[in-house]
Amino acid sequence: MTDYRRALEEAVRFLREHDRFLILSHVNPDGDAIGSTLAVAAMLEQLGKSYVLVNESGAPDKFSFLPRFERICNLSQDLAGDTFSAVIAVDCADASRMGDVRHLFAPDAALLNIDHHPTNDAFGAVNVIRTDAAATAEILYDLNEAAGLPITEDFALCIYTGLLTDTGGFRYSNTSPYNMEIAARLLRYGVNPGDVAERCLEVITLSHVKLLRQALQTLRMSHGNLVASVFVSRQDLESVGADREDAGGLVNYCRNIEGVEVGVSFVEAEPGTVKVSLRARSRVDVSEIAKQLGGGGHAKAAGCTLRGTLAEAQERVWNALGQALGVNADE
Amino acid sequence: MTDYRRALEEAVRFLREHDRFLILSHVNPDGDAIGSTLAVAAMLEQLGKSYVLVNESGAPDKFSFLPRFERICNLSQDLAGDTFSAVIAVDCADASRMGDVRHLFAPDAALLNIDHHPTNDAFGAVNVIRTDAAATAEILYDLNEAAGLPITEDFALCIYTGLLTDTGGFRYSNTSPYNMEIAARLLRYGVNPGDVAERCLEVITLSHVKLLRQALQTLRMSHGNLVASVFVSRQDLESVGADREDAGGLVNYCRNIEGVEVGVSFVEAEPGTVKVSLRARSRVDVSEIAKQLGGGGHAKAAGCTLRGTLAEAQERVWNALGQALGVNADE
Ligand SMILES: [Mn+2]
Ligand SMILES: [Mn+2]
Repeated sequence: MTDYRRALEEAVRFLREHDRFLILSHVNPDGDAIGSTLAVAAMLEQLGKSYVLVNESGAPDKFSFLPRFERICNLSQDLAGDTFSAVIAVDCADASRMGDVRHLFAPDAALLNIDHHPTNDAFGAVNVIRTDAAATAEILYDLNEAAGLPITEDFALCIYTGLLTDTGGFRYSNTSPYNMEIAARLLRYGVNPGDVAERCLEVITLSHVKLLRQALQTLRMSHGNLVASVFVSRQDLESVGADREDAGGLVNYCRNIEGVEVGVSFVEAEPGTVKVSLRARSRVDVSEIAKQLGGGGHAKAAGCTLRGTLAEAQERVWNALGQALGVNADE
Repeated sequence: MTDYRRALEEAVRFLREHDRFLILSHVNPDGDAIGSTLAVAAMLEQLGKSYVLVNESGAPDKFSFLPRFERICNLSQDLAGDTFSAVIAVDCADASRMGDVRHLFAPDAALLNIDHHPTNDAFGAVNVIRTDAAATAEILYDLNEAAGLPITEDFALCIYTGLLTDTGGFRYSNTSPYNMEIAARLLRYGVNPGDVAERCLEVITLSHVKLLRQALQTLRMSHGNLVASVFVSRQDLESVGADREDAGGLVNYCRNIEGVEVGVSFVEAEPGTVKVSLRARSRVDVSEIAKQLGGGGHAKAAGCTLRGTLAEAQERVWNALGQALGVNADE
């Protein structure tokens, strides 16, 4: 029996031996955090156990289609001074990711830690960690099986949501055959893949759209149309009531233009500070560009933060890209 | 043995008994048409057969990552007056979809027709049609298995491309458990799902981006922010060198805005003619709206064509949406 199998067995015992569970996921939860929280709830229903679901940040409305979503409390809600002696943390790389929740733990609290992050520090009494899982939901699928529980429609929907969101719709490099095999299997339990994708992946904020509108006004093709870039000034951010998060996806529009090798966004994060995001197709390793400019990242997605004006930042990035592509900016 | 199994067996015999195949797909080919064409080529390589690949429209550059892409001829290329007595048509609902290719057929030509369109009229001597297949590529996967051929890396990449593109990245309602199971299995043969998605699904034309820039200037939230809409005039289309195709995805940006129930795009297709596209989340059946206005479609995606000015078209659609939502346009 592998260590992973042994850990799953231990976790099954944890579920069977305790009751009145507190289930937690990480602050600012994503689809895997919420999907995993509610998947554990669905399992505990099968086992006839009671539980309380908490997330320090609360759960984003877009996941309200998930079963038992309304049972996720935030910390401002009245938990009646309750403490819990059985705690399950899902999708948290370390204890601090749970947020400020210690006051909910009984002094003798036992913690089951279920996660897929490579940096997980095994902070639980029982730890089920598989770092080649694309999502914590993938591990919970294994746990459900190890517990001999049936796949319910509720459970299937929660797990699918975790698998889909943590792989960016089965597109990130963590997408594995096993990950997609599970997803395929879950479709036999009533999951509507289009509906989940629409709710989780295809929602954009109005601030983002307004920022996109503004940014596209600055769209510039350079380096013989191999580079596409946009600018966002502090004023742009303020005028549409957007924050830096809303500027997050802009660089993808640039990179996705037919024939473009490198997309760049310049965002004036603070006065005199420009956040540069770089996305590449295949000809350039943008982590090299970012490194030259004091930043870092991966071959296809990298970034750096430069001091100076937008024009100064552009000048430096233009030159580096010109060298890497062998084409000047104004060609 | 089902009719489908019997048809697959017949198709296997067709492949084994003939040689010097002509392989065709439909005009203006998509990922399934090109993927299926090249998947058949990969199978014929295994069988030691020779073949010529033709598409009336040629093959779009974005599929150039597929093996043997460069072997797809268009009709202007010199086929040396050759004719073929064994023809395979993939992803063509009827013979006319192949384009003007009859002069390539020998008088005694036998045609194998492999397709998934519900409207397929069985125009081949041998017909392998499964209308619940999300893609023709799915049927070719079955055919490869029926022929007892191994799954090669080339074959896997071509099939995955067909499965991915015809399901919109496993998001359309045709996405089935079997479809995703095959996709998952193909990942074990060297397919990089992120790379294929990036090349096939995440490419936008510069004309589209320019049109988006223009259209977002007209973004209007109405009906208590439940409706988001954009306008595109003839002048807009002409000034960015775009055609109506480029305007295709604009309505999705509207529908995808958080909290929006209906997205609408108004495109002045001809002077005095406005093409209205409607996309819904869940509260409104937009096929009803479209029907009222002389159009049609599905509950979540519908459209109609109205005579008159953009302002007149807007007025009519606004009123219909106001009734359906129970909220006036200017609320
Ligand atoms: Mn996760
Ligand atoms: Mn097709």
